[in-house]
Amino acid sequence: MSILIVGSTALDSIRTPKAENPKLLGGSASHAAVAASFFGPVKLVGVVGDDFPKSYLELYRKHKIDLEGLQVKQGKTFHWSGEYELNMDNRQTLLTELGVFETFTPHLPDSHKKSPFVLLANIAPSLQAHVLDQMQRPKFVIADTMDLWLNIALPDLLALIKRVDAFVLNESEAHQLTERNNMLHAAREIHKLGPKYVIIKKGHNGAFLSSPRGLFLCPAYPLENVCDPTGAGDSFVGGLMGYLATQPGPVEKNLRRAMVYGSVVASFCCEGFGLTRTTKVKRSEIEKRVKELEKLVRF
Amino acid sequence: MSILIVGSTALDSIRTPKAENPKLLGGSASHAAVAASFFGPVKLVGVVGDDFPKSYLELYRKHKIDLEGLQVKQGKTFHWSGEYELNMDNRQTLLTELGVFETFTPHLPDSHKKSPFVLLANIAPSLQAHVLDQMQRPKFVIADTMDLWLNIALPDLLALIKRVDAFVLNESEAHQLTERNNMLHAAREIHKLGPKYVIIKKGHNGAFLSSPRGLFLCPAYPLENVCDPTGAGDSFVGGLMGYLATQPGPVEKNLRRAMVYGSVVASFCCEGFGLTRTTKVKRSEIEKRVKELEKLVRF
Repeated sequence: MSILIVGSTALDSIRTPKAENPKLLGGSASHAAVAASFFGPVKLVGVVGDDFPKSYLELYRKHKIDLEGLQVKQGKTFHWSGEYELNMDNRQTLLTELGVFETFTPHLPDSHKKSPFVLLANIAPSLQAHVLDQMQRPKFVIADTMDLWLNIALPDLLALIKRVDAFVLNESEAHQLTERNNMLHAAREIHKLGPKYVIIKKGHNGAFLSSPRGLFLCPAYPLENVCDPTGAGDSFVGGLMGYLATQPGPVEKNLRRAMVYGSVVASFCCEGFGLTRTTKVKRSEIEKRVKELEKLVRF
Repeated sequence: MSILIVGSTALDSIRTPKAENPKLLGGSASHAAVAASFFGPVKLVGVVGDDFPKSYLELYRKHKIDLEGLQVKQGKTFHWSGEYELNMDNRQTLLTELGVFETFTPHLPDSHKKSPFVLLANIAPSLQAHVLDQMQRPKFVIADTMDLWLNIALPDLLALIKRVDAFVLNESEAHQLTERNNMLHAAREIHKLGPKYVIIKKGHNGAFLSSPRGLFLCPAYPLENVCDPTGAGDSFVGGLMGYLATQPGPVEKNLRRAMVYGSVVASFCCEGFGLTRTTKVKRSEIEKRVKELEKLVRF
């Protein structure tokens, strides 16, 4: 079944201690859409400016991403620039130029409104809500977020969380949102806000699912070389939804394995700048790492 | 088969944001010995002063810990005092009174010298080496350490590492020892120093094994309430060795499951001050959490 992904589509200029890469294809929806594309058809909703490189549109198309919902507006594409420290965990934002993203309103083409799987990748919660307003009874809705929205749009975020099946956030965001240090307590508080499934991302320590069936500790694939973690969280949730949308049976039954697939796609994302590694991945490489992860946690 | 455990035997005064507990039974060997005692016979080698409470000797005996190698000297028992911050991850040492521990030299009774399994719990690496000097062809030797020895006794530690089968240290210590941020690289560097098995402890994120058979990601049991993590690392390695010593077949085959048992005993340790929770644990409770962990990582 096809999935709809809405989020940011951006140009990322990324500096690490080893290299500098200007204006790579980036944004939460770009990473999530490419990640999901390995599993099935994807519809992308976002906005780019008239400076958006044609080669990046080609890249989306190469991944068979439906671009009917991608708006091209006069002006500049959202441009983010950041710098990583040596440990690759800490990063500083150097520049944020919103461009056409500042006035973005996601309009869904009619063909998108019945998508059974909806991934609200990281954008303002009011825009995520606006997408849901246009949807006709989706089967499964997952929303991602970031600390920025906890800081500047908390009421919007709380209103959105009520409406989604699964909510994804990272460890520090879970602590911030619930004021609980303990992960089990934090997850419980988030369930009270609405979602049946709570997924807490822990970077290279994997991810954690709290669901009616119980908890799941999802491993992260141990990497020899982390080149650029930008977009890893978006790739995780994109791969997760991509896999989930292709599996028969109830979500509950498939969600653990879907998280592992997301984790594996995220591992590839970290191995190159922007989407440079992810876009070269073959499905067989994904399957190989999933099998390796099975062995890595077996006892 | 019986295991020999050498390390510190101490009185711990532990302060957390919620409570203060003076002069609990503590020390690396105490935690490790109690943890190992759930699985089979344990011989403890350490030193205490003449102020050491009889009730703590009784506690050892209740766990069938052989105390022939425990020296009782005139003077004060090693006393450590520390305080945890609210997140339970950061702690500050408030006081260290070495007492009789200052002049401790581990002498092994003859009955101890043929123990097939040897756990060199955290003490000065020169003392750990002195124990090995007295052993007669042990089957499996594991050594734990702490950042203090990396800082003040690195040459001794490097000499010791060459002589052990398995070396255990925590994430930050692995980074410090190898100057590698990446865990795979750090493990590889530590293998070059001698040990066939490298185990990196990651606190509530579990532990990581690098061995000839490959890598293993050992989960940590998710806890509702962390009361006091003091001794969790010692409990981990104690439980690990206790289980390992009772299993037929080669170490390589049993090590993953042994780590999981260690992880579970460590989870109980965190649920009470000092050894107060661990000493009340039943073997059936350990088995229950091991089964739960199996379910928590299954996908």
